[in-house]
Amino acid sequence: MADEVVVIEGDGIGREVVPAAVEVLEAFDIDFEFVEAEAGDAVKEATGEALPTETYETVADADATLFGAAGETAADVILPLRDAVDSFVNVRPAKAYPGVDALRPETDVVFLRENTEGVYAGHEDRLSEDLSTLTRVVTASASRELAEYACEFVGDGRGPDGRDGFTVAHKSNVMRETDGRFRREVLAVAEERGVDADEELMDAFATKLPLDPSQYGVVVCPNLAGDVLSDLAAGLVGGLGLLPSANVGHENGLFEPVHGTAPDIAGEGIANPTAAVLSAAMLLEHLGHVEEGGRVRTAVESVLSDGPRTGDLGGDATTEEVTAAIVDRL
Amino acid sequence: MADEVVVIEGDGIGREVVPAAVEVLEAFDIDFEFVEAEAGDAVKEATGEALPTETYETVADADATLFGAAGETAADVILPLRDAVDSFVNVRPAKAYPGVDALRPETDVVFLRENTEGVYAGHEDRLSEDLSTLTRVVTASASRELAEYACEFVGDGRGPDGRDGFTVAHKSNVMRETDGRFRREVLAVAEERGVDADEELMDAFATKLPLDPSQYGVVVCPNLAGDVLSDLAAGLVGGLGLLPSANVGHENGLFEPVHGTAPDIAGEGIANPTAAVLSAAMLLEHLGHVEEGGRVRTAVESVLSDGPRTGDLGGDATTEEVTAAIVDRL
Ligand SMILES: CC(C)[C@H](C(=O)O)[C@@H](O)C(=O)O
Ligand SMILES: CC(C)[C@H](C(=O)O)[C@@H](O)C(=O)O
Repeated sequence: MADEVVVIEGDGIGREVVPAAVEVLEAFDIDFEFVEAEAGDAVKEATGEALPTETYETVADADATLFGAAGETAADVILPLRDAVDSFVNVRPAKAYPGVDALRPETDVVFLRENTEGVYAGHEDRLSEDLSTLTRVVTASASRELAEYACEFVGDGRGPDGRDGFTVAHKSNVMRETDGRFRREVLAVAEERGVDADEELMDAFATKLPLDPSQYGVVVCPNLAGDVLSDLAAGLVGGLGLLPSANVGHENGLFEPVHGTAPDIAGEGIANPTAAVLSAAMLLEHLGHVEEGGRVRTAVESVLSDGPRTGDLGGDATTEEVTAAIVDRL
Repeated sequence: MADEVVVIEGDGIGREVVPAAVEVLEAFDIDFEFVEAEAGDAVKEATGEALPTETYETVADADATLFGAAGETAADVILPLRDAVDSFVNVRPAKAYPGVDALRPETDVVFLRENTEGVYAGHEDRLSEDLSTLTRVVTASASRELAEYACEFVGDGRGPDGRDGFTVAHKSNVMRETDGRFRREVLAVAEERGVDADEELMDAFATKLPLDPSQYGVVVCPNLAGDVLSDLAAGLVGGLGLLPSANVGHENGLFEPVHGTAPDIAGEGIANPTAAVLSAAMLLEHLGHVEEGGRVRTAVESVLSDGPRTGDLGGDATTEEVTAAIVDRL
């Protein structure tokens, strides 16, 4: 049976890089059924809703979704979509590619970010004229599920350089009950599974990653810590332009470049499709097409090292030229 | 009347760098009354309490406190001490010094971190076998007080290069009510005071700071954001070894190096006293000895550029030799 893949371009350069990624997917002899759906600023403008119910349901019922970017409405789109695919982990590799100018070229870290709770569970109240509160949520079950995933991830040799352990980053010296629980459950699962795990306070991690990224491989974090620390890693590899991500669910997944809509260059056909194409590679792997995913990655690395480049990487190629080069080298 | 300054060495290299900082303070013809007090792992070992009530009260009643570092008990010591001095802002300058190896030598950023609430207000509950929660707190009053301080700070020309505006970093797209309030109140105060303020999501800030630190000067943040983002800046200037901080209260203050106890080198007399000495400079300024504070800073910069260096900076000088050189150049 065909895999149903929902395609949501969204706003800005999402409309350019998502078609590029679809072109790469179509280059394989795989039976995909692509379904277009809408979300983002433009559809909100038109209908009043950034994420139409129809889109939510289409995504929830599909096998996987490829998403581009949304503008002002990003949070209104992406947080419910993560929920639609029942995602419990956000996989965010941050790798410096040969030939790309990076502050720390040795960076090769994969963040496994908890994707359902923490401050994102988001029960907020305005208790008085002066006082607002937010209830941050941590459960043993979500922490353990993330840890099980991390153990399988490193067990399968998917960590950078096949590293077989991981680091838990947290702030349990201040959030003793909540991050204390997160830390304890994650380390307990690692121990049960015989996986090496060490830990780092998230503030110390933020100091140490720029000083020496090679000391880290797979990093397991609560939701907001994963958001901030993976974006920090993006700064070390040269920006968000090349970074893919996977919101992995139990039987579904949502794949998106980490970058935004880049309004300054949107519509010109010069956006870098790399992050979207690498997100498509993660989608392929998630659907079991592991060999094809690897081929996309290899083609992307080859083009980055000596192929045409878009303006963000100092070249003057168009999105279409870079995409054609990637397809050519598959 | 003499200014009463409490001196808490704490653990590890705190016992070496705090005496060095006191030596610098004593070099001035200022009438200080130094009072020794205890806190940290060692006193916990001996008495069962990391922060004896007597220490808390001595600190609360003094004009200022110079603190070194605490080991495992850091949070048990430092969080109540911030409360003892009634601190509402943690001032954390992160500057790369000439002659010191830094990933981003152009970094010169001062973080003004909210110092009383956010997740540090810390109401945590274990609601079930599975579920723990933390209530994050944001008030308009604390947000506005921080913003007033920031406006005065830049108005007084204390921002890097005399910059007259600031950036608010927050995560209001997710924490809409709490960080929404923080952001709104801080920007409103800036507008009332005619101070330029722009804003950045904290995750975007974490990407952009390493890419180009020169775009930021004074950064105003909620408590945990300030913790993590200032530690990130530390990684760009070469580590925590040189960074001072000031916990500023209404009529009191607590001054501490950002570094920890450095157990690997503690007791050898080779710790770098710079961060503690620069914290003493902030203490001097806080007590109105602005000219003297400036002289300490200038002497430190001079020694860093061509004076004796401790091992962390590639030299082989002792703590005492570096301190003597600083005193010599005052
Ligand atoms: C848009 C925003 C809600 C989102 C997040 O905070 O998760 C984004 O920063 C990301 O990391 O995908
Ligand atoms: C020790 C810890 C509680 C403290 C904090 O989180 O504030 C430390 O990281 C700091 O930044 O001074």
